[in-house]
Amino acid sequence: MNYFSTDFRLGILGGGQLGKMLLYDTRKFDIATNVLDPSIDAPAQFGAHKFFQGDLMDFETVYRFGKTVNTLTIEIENVNLDALEQLEKEGLNVFPSPSTLRLIQHKGKQKDFYTQNNIPTAPYKRFDDIESLKEAVNNNEATIPFVWKAAQFGYDGNGVKVVRSVADLDKLPNVECIAEQMIPFKNELAVIVARSVSGEIKTYPVVEMEFHPEANQVEYVICPARIPSAVSDKAREVALKVSEKYNHVGLLAVEMFQTEDDDILVNEVAPRPHNSGHYSIEASYTSQFEQHIRAILDLPLGDTDSKVAGVMVNLVGAEGYTGQVYYEGMKEILAINGVTPHIYGKRETRPFRKMGHVTIVNPDMTKARAIAQQVKETIKVISK
Amino acid sequence: MNYFSTDFRLGILGGGQLGKMLLYDTRKFDIATNVLDPSIDAPAQFGAHKFFQGDLMDFETVYRFGKTVNTLTIEIENVNLDALEQLEKEGLNVFPSPSTLRLIQHKGKQKDFYTQNNIPTAPYKRFDDIESLKEAVNNNEATIPFVWKAAQFGYDGNGVKVVRSVADLDKLPNVECIAEQMIPFKNELAVIVARSVSGEIKTYPVVEMEFHPEANQVEYVICPARIPSAVSDKAREVALKVSEKYNHVGLLAVEMFQTEDDDILVNEVAPRPHNSGHYSIEASYTSQFEQHIRAILDLPLGDTDSKVAGVMVNLVGAEGYTGQVYYEGMKEILAINGVTPHIYGKRETRPFRKMGHVTIVNPDMTKARAIAQQVKETIKVISK
Repeated sequence: MNYFSTDFRLGILGGGQLGKMLLYDTRKFDIATNVLDPSIDAPAQFGAHKFFQGDLMDFETVYRFGKTVNTLTIEIENVNLDALEQLEKEGLNVFPSPSTLRLIQHKGKQKDFYTQNNIPTAPYKRFDDIESLKEAVNNNEATIPFVWKAAQFGYDGNGVKVVRSVADLDKLPNVECIAEQMIPFKNELAVIVARSVSGEIKTYPVVEMEFHPEANQVEYVICPARIPSAVSDKAREVALKVSEKYNHVGLLAVEMFQTEDDDILVNEVAPRPHNSGHYSIEASYTSQFEQHIRAILDLPLGDTDSKVAGVMVNLVGAEGYTGQVYYEGMKEILAINGVTPHIYGKRETRPFRKMGHVTIVNPDMTKARAIAQQVKETIKVISK
Repeated sequence: MNYFSTDFRLGILGGGQLGKMLLYDTRKFDIATNVLDPSIDAPAQFGAHKFFQGDLMDFETVYRFGKTVNTLTIEIENVNLDALEQLEKEGLNVFPSPSTLRLIQHKGKQKDFYTQNNIPTAPYKRFDDIESLKEAVNNNEATIPFVWKAAQFGYDGNGVKVVRSVADLDKLPNVECIAEQMIPFKNELAVIVARSVSGEIKTYPVVEMEFHPEANQVEYVICPARIPSAVSDKAREVALKVSEKYNHVGLLAVEMFQTEDDDILVNEVAPRPHNSGHYSIEASYTSQFEQHIRAILDLPLGDTDSKVAGVMVNLVGAEGYTGQVYYEGMKEILAINGVTPHIYGKRETRPFRKMGHVTIVNPDMTKARAIAQQVKETIKVISK
């Protein structure tokens, strides 16, 4: 198949920031794209050859969209899998495959999958609803504190809560869920694995998510992770095993915990470009977005090494501000060498809404990390 | 002025590959754009908020387009300057300014400008038409061989011919022109100077255009140029002087000759992103396209240094092929580390048409240059 400046068309389910950043590389290669998103204001509304507004969870909408393209991919897991299965049955290339997505979309099944495949993960129990969870707590079958996770439809920390008391249980929605043992960890790590249709595999370097000491929120994604090479080797190995077992096509972002004993436990995966790989646009020889396209179109994979050290800072809406967004401090951060803001294109800010990110690159990691802090302290996503 | 995710709108005259690449960065910053181009198939038809089809040389079309935006820039010099002057008079920000463009659009005036400002350039004579040029040759006021240049509307080597015999004169069109003394040179160099509205100035490193030994055609753009630092210092100095005299806003690409005696002569300038700066997308901390946007919006300029060495190869249509383009050898070049093809999105190939470019980056310049040669020998722009 010839993709470049032809009638070939790639479909992308979801038009958020990940879809938007995928389009930089489809444009670069002149690969034609159709994008489907429920919002008419989606960040990926520009840059596609055709933008469709529609419900990603609706069978008919997804099925009909799929009929307009030659290969279909996703930038979000929450899409109608029955439609994808039907399209695949009718011969459409769907990457990641609906069967892979089914294993990932549901956090209970995802955890079972790790257990079945001897992939290290934190101990957990599955519950059909909030009542059975409460019962388990009463019977000491689940021990507080634990991490509660909704089985489906969570995103960006939504659908994840730490339960520290019986009272906390009453704040949880009544949905299928898992209760996961809290594991004290030194670091949260991630590895992005790329796997092409014909099975070529490459891993990106291990990145480290640095958390805010009080708020339990990722503040910086740091590449490469500042960990001993024995630990990063182990993390890459575990990520490769996860990738192999899922047999996915495209990217697989594997989030992991480095425990106090330097064990690696898999937390969760995403079969698509991922927040932990945004640094790659500026720092890597091949950005994760270009890599995803190479993988699903069965082109040779690109070099995953970095040109320079990279640190990524998420731009989230400041607390106390809702409305037309204003990026305070943009001029100041643009004046610093090696600083690149990415503004996703959401007009309205809300507390904690992901509005953009900033990448800081530098030949020297210590400097990159210091500048990242300066950026974090300078820029504010507010409204006025 | 606040540009990010607001109603501010940037207008771009021209929707070719330069416009297309500018849009990567307006999208990254979520700066809304309108683009005007005569072709409905323009490479920049996607990625803008609004694309208009229309004649760039028509007063009414350009004037009306200008009324839809808050700041106006160009990606091609051949636009209606009267319309730009009128818009500027009415208070619109136009960068580069129509007065700068007037000095550059006309090669006779451009050469006079260098002479008046003591900027070293090859000796030349101006002629109103072909008859007066022929007369000058007859009277030995112009000496064959010389370089003939059309005063206006040339692009990509079009409008430039080496006149080696009286017979060659008969192949030239009857337009205003200049005859320039042929200067034997060691290297053709270029420096891109960025200058912001408030006068901040930065220069990119000196690049070298390596020519094919037989065909008189640029084969590689190499950054940094492989020349002694005394020569590159001089080239940067001359480029800064040219920039200062033009008093432009935005980028100014200054093309120069390094003579046999290591003198620097200015050949010509372009007040916009330039082929000689394409390497910057992958190699530099700040791409030339992002830099142009920073400059015209009076944002702080970004770092012009390189992360790694960069070599750019132009992809032009192979001789003997016209029609639906096919990029032969794409898979092979994508398999090489540090190789990034840019496909502009022109459906039809023609001999020598600029269809794209490939950037090769590597920490080691010698390796980058060797891979560039491999790329050049592998990829072919044909039709089938």
